[in-house]
Amino acid sequence: MLRFVTSNAGKAREASQYLPEAVERVDYDYPEIQSDSLEAIATAGARDAYREIGEPVFVDDSGLFIDALGGFPGPYSSYVDEKLGIERVQALAAREENDRARFRTVVAYADDDGVETFEGTVRGRIVAPRGSGGFGYDPIFEHRGQTFAEMSPEEKNAVSHRGRALAAFGDWLAER
Amino acid sequence: MLRFVTSNAGKAREASQYLPEAVERVDYDYPEIQSDSLEAIATAGARDAYREIGEPVFVDDSGLFIDALGGFPGPYSSYVDEKLGIERVQALAAREENDRARFRTVVAYADDDGVETFEGTVRGRIVAPRGSGGFGYDPIFEHRGQTFAEMSPEEKNAVSHRGRALAAFGDWLAER
Repeated sequence: MLRFVTSNAGKAREASQYLPEAVERVDYDYPEIQSDSLEAIATAGARDAYREIGEPVFVDDSGLFIDALGGFPGPYSSYVDEKLGIERVQALAAREENDRARFRTVVAYADDDGVETFEGTVRGRIVAPRGSGGFGYDPIFEHRGQTFAEMSPEEKNAVSHRGRALAAFGDWLAER
Repeated sequence: MLRFVTSNAGKAREASQYLPEAVERVDYDYPEIQSDSLEAIATAGARDAYREIGEPVFVDDSGLFIDALGGFPGPYSSYVDEKLGIERVQALAAREENDRARFRTVVAYADDDGVETFEGTVRGRIVAPRGSGGFGYDPIFEHRGQTFAEMSPEEKNAVSHRGRALAAFGDWLAER
């Protein structure tokens, strides 16, 4: 049984598809550090949650990284979505020539042996908002002609950064 | 003697003007948490630095809060300056009707009794960049007809958010 520290019940259900053991959600609000690096944020969070909970746990951290904006909003994607909204982020990106971006997720797993991290990336382009599915930046992130908000949950899961990070974690668990 | 945990030697020299005791700089890189609240970030930082160093210490945290952008970039001002640059932030603000903004600093002091915080604010407007002094967002922050980058260091110190927070801390130290 694996413990996923997240406030999001949907994430915990999604994770169980990728992992070789049952997933239990733990609702503990670990402090997120400020860093340019998802790896550093997730590693610190997993270490803190493991100390607090006393059992092996994993956490995830995700962000949208826009190439022409130096990776902005990156680890602060939720904050920037809340404060600026995705239309303003798209307007900022539309002023640049290069429209490329990446969604990234890092999963960090902590136990007695320390912390292991697993990464998933999906590449795409920033476009004017389209579609009504998904959440966050999905309407402005286009991958192979469709925005994430235009995809069904199944289509999105098949290519998503979170799915790829969880699959890498699942492979590691199955092999250790 | 007061210990100021900061990587910035200029800040430590400036602080000594406002405080009733000598200031020694301590170069310890405490982890900054992610939060909307400068108070929460500075409090966590002071607590961590006090645990690490074992002597009473203070830290500061500052940000530019643009009213029409829900307080963006706020606690993430340095990150956003580095990634977007102040011209893009000004362009974002120029799309809004309301041009008002605040610079804020919170000083947090930690000792055996816990953590005390002291706040300083200065109000102004976001304008196209003018002036070559100061640093960060100073060229786009206008206060009483001048941007912070157009002021002499003495003029800026006389009204600045950091000066006001340090003065409040100095008053508290003198009276306790």
